[in-house]
Amino acid sequence: MTLPYLTPLSRSQMDGFGVPPDWPFGLMDRVRFSEIDALAHVNHTAYLRWFESLRVLYMRERGISPYDGTGPLIVLKSVSMEYRREMFLGEDYVVTARTVAFRRASLEMHYAAFAPDLRAEGTAVIVLMARDGSGKHPLTDAQKARLLELDGAEDASG
Amino acid sequence: MTLPYLTPLSRSQMDGFGVPPDWPFGLMDRVRFSEIDALAHVNHTAYLRWFESLRVLYMRERGISPYDGTGPLIVLKSVSMEYRREMFLGEDYVVTARTVAFRRASLEMHYAAFAPDLRAEGTAVIVLMARDGSGKHPLTDAQKARLLELDGAEDASG
Amino acid sequence: MTLPYLTPLSRSQMDGFGVPPDWPFGLMDRVRFSEIDALAHVNHTAYLRWFESLRVLYMRERGISPYDGTGPLIVLKSVSMEYRREMFLGEDYVVTARTVAFRRASLEMHYAAFAPDLRAEGTAVIVLMARDGSGKHPLTDAQKARLLELDGAEDASG
Amino acid sequence: MTLPYLTPLSRSQMDGFGVPPDWPFGLMDRVRFSEIDALAHVNHTAYLRWFESLRVLYMRERGISPYDGTGPLIVLKSVSMEYRREMFLGEDYVVTARTVAFRRASLEMHYAAFAPDLRAEGTAVIVLMARDGSGKHPLTDAQKARLLELDGAEDASG
Repeated sequence: MTLPYLTPLSRSQMDGFGVPPDWPFGLMDRVRFSEIDALAHVNHTAYLRWFESLRVLYMRERGISPYDGTGPLIVLKSVSMEYRREMFLGEDYVVTARTVAFRRASLEMHYAAFAPDLRAEGTAVIVLMARDGSGKHPLTDAQKARLLELDGAEDASG
Repeated sequence: MTLPYLTPLSRSQMDGFGVPPDWPFGLMDRVRFSEIDALAHVNHTAYLRWFESLRVLYMRERGISPYDGTGPLIVLKSVSMEYRREMFLGEDYVVTARTVAFRRASLEMHYAAFAPDLRAEGTAVIVLMARDGSGKHPLTDAQKARLLELDGAEDASG
Repeated sequence: MTLPYLTPLSRSQMDGFGVPPDWPFGLMDRVRFSEIDALAHVNHTAYLRWFESLRVLYMRERGISPYDGTGPLIVLKSVSMEYRREMFLGEDYVVTARTVAFRRASLEMHYAAFAPDLRAEGTAVIVLMARDGSGKHPLTDAQKARLLELDGAEDASG
Repeated sequence: MTLPYLTPLSRSQMDGFGVPPDWPFGLMDRVRFSEIDALAHVNHTAYLRWFESLRVLYMRERGISPYDGTGPLIVLKSVSMEYRREMFLGEDYVVTARTVAFRRASLEMHYAAFAPDLRAEGTAVIVLMARDGSGKHPLTDAQKARLLELDGAEDASG
């Protein structure tokens, strides 16, 4: 299978890989040698790295932070992970993300890894902080509209 | 401050650093350059690495797995983290662990990082698997007794 | 630009990215958040991770080791790196590899990273070891023939 | 063995561990789970992380850069490594550093890891860059004097 990796997958590409339709955003990759630990499977922290990489691309694509030295800082408040089935060297996978709810200056996100069955799920609570140290950086109305439309997120900012 | 690092801290050493008395197991370390990310603070995955390192030592000290190619495999089922306050290059910290409950072949563990105020907290559910692939590897009575006595863990194995 | 990443680049794809013609083997990727260090550029060890990932694929494609629990162990004897120009978050690059010489059970390899100008160069001396601990694992004649033909490697095994 | 780790080892501590007398600067540590790769030994990049961590402490102790947002940037121009004997989970080691020569705004450093026999050796060429982007940041006479006295470095700055 040839899938792009430098840009998010299209809906039909995700369908073709078996990713459930409620995931609006995904990227393809392959397990690397450095992600394998002494137990000969993917280390539990590697999944968090995958979600982190995807989050950077997601924040750019959703217009929340360009990660170019401008825009809000994307700070993690909490994360959680559930490991479903171990992964091995060379496996292809799709990692997915969506915002399930947002508040004034924070997002609750879900993540998953498929290969193509579900291997791991994660959550993160993310706070947007002003780069000048002045405190939280609120979401704009345009950003909220995109999260409502593209992710089906719940607006908890009221 | 000069503290040993190759062995777990004593209770009085943890008291001296300000670690609350309900943490029975801790180790001292210092934030390294490779743990700092593009936001100039400790990356969220580094805490999980600290907890992983401590877990290896803990499993040895509690007599659960020697990590020498024998004994059960220590497999993560889930993890969670709460980040309280960011950490920076060169900060000294104590990372702590305890088992709060155990079942027949699994443990629910808590972790924390102090510097010396609380910087991050974590949980993990760990399953003991037989090395030969035959399935779960039950805790022995002696192991359960140690978890009850040293950690004050709840016995949910009944 | 859309380039494949799950398989080695073709010669024309490498030409299109500006990779010099003496590199027979390359892969496309993009700088990730976790590869950026406190100096806001790609950490020096990340390049070695790129070369390691490429080496695994290279060893499979050249028929030297399948990395599936069979075949020789690929052990590093030495590495070196020269850093030409720093790299930043989100940059696309092509990482390349070739064997410049081989002996009875070892290879001297060169590596580079282009984005698209040369950012870093590396070397590695690799020893093939038998998986059963019995010592070195010699290259077969078929493997030597491939290294001569595909990489233009020097045969120093005589 | 109980050895301090938050400060450089004394000469007698290094003697006690078997570190040759021409190494003026060393630190004790222990192999961690996250440093072990799929071959069940310390990954080749982990040694470079050890040298990096030691370099940060060395630059502070030699008064070259405080790593606190002031002082010159410590930029790697090249590195090399020779692997002598593999290392395993839980091994105690001493990692050592010294400057063998310096120029106007650069240092040639050597590194090693002992456990207690020599496991790996490395070199690095480091350039001091001004933090404001104005170019190289020359060594002061006081810094040169310390490198001459403490490391026995060659002065190639003339």
